[in-house]
Amino acid sequence: MELASSNYIETIGFIAAFLTTAAFLPQVFKTWKTKDVSGLSFSMLLMFFVGVFLWLVYGYYKESPSMIMANTITLGSAFLLIYFKITYRKK
Amino acid sequence: MELASSNYIETIGFIAAFLTTAAFLPQVFKTWKTKDVSGLSFSMLLMFFVGVFLWLVYGYYKESPSMIMANTITLGSAFLLIYFKITYRKK
Repeated sequence: MELASSNYIETIGFIAAFLTTAAFLPQVFKTWKTKDVSGLSFSMLLMFFVGVFLWLVYGYYKESPSMIMANTITLGSAFLLIYFKITYRKK
Repeated sequence: MELASSNYIETIGFIAAFLTTAAFLPQVFKTWKTKDVSGLSFSMLLMFFVGVFLWLVYGYYKESPSMIMANTITLGSAFLLIYFKITYRKK
């Protein structure tokens, strides 16, 4: 049963990708500007990073362009937050 | 070309689902405990909520159990954060 045309499905995926990726970027920007990483938990960031990487692998196997795009950008954002957490930690 | 068996792919999806969902829950718990919603942007929460809902729809059309599970839980978390944001807003 073809639920919906794959173009239609990928359009939903790309809108979802845009929204969840865009919603995450201000957090990265605010952390970069304020250098305040006190609210960020290192273990959570690592968990999130590994999880997003696996979603990227999953999107590759499912041949899903929207998942690949969203998780590539979010992986970059998560990497930046980890970098900030290490760099701006109170010495 | 069958990249990998679907069981193998779904296992990756479920591990990703667990990690990214689990990484998000402490934020919800901390907000509930501290009642501090100052760091949460209402528009970002709404964007995230709609985005996660669309990922849920996408996961349904892609017949992806791991996406459906992850996004259902994250949708609940996002809804809670929106509820906290409205309830605990400084009057």
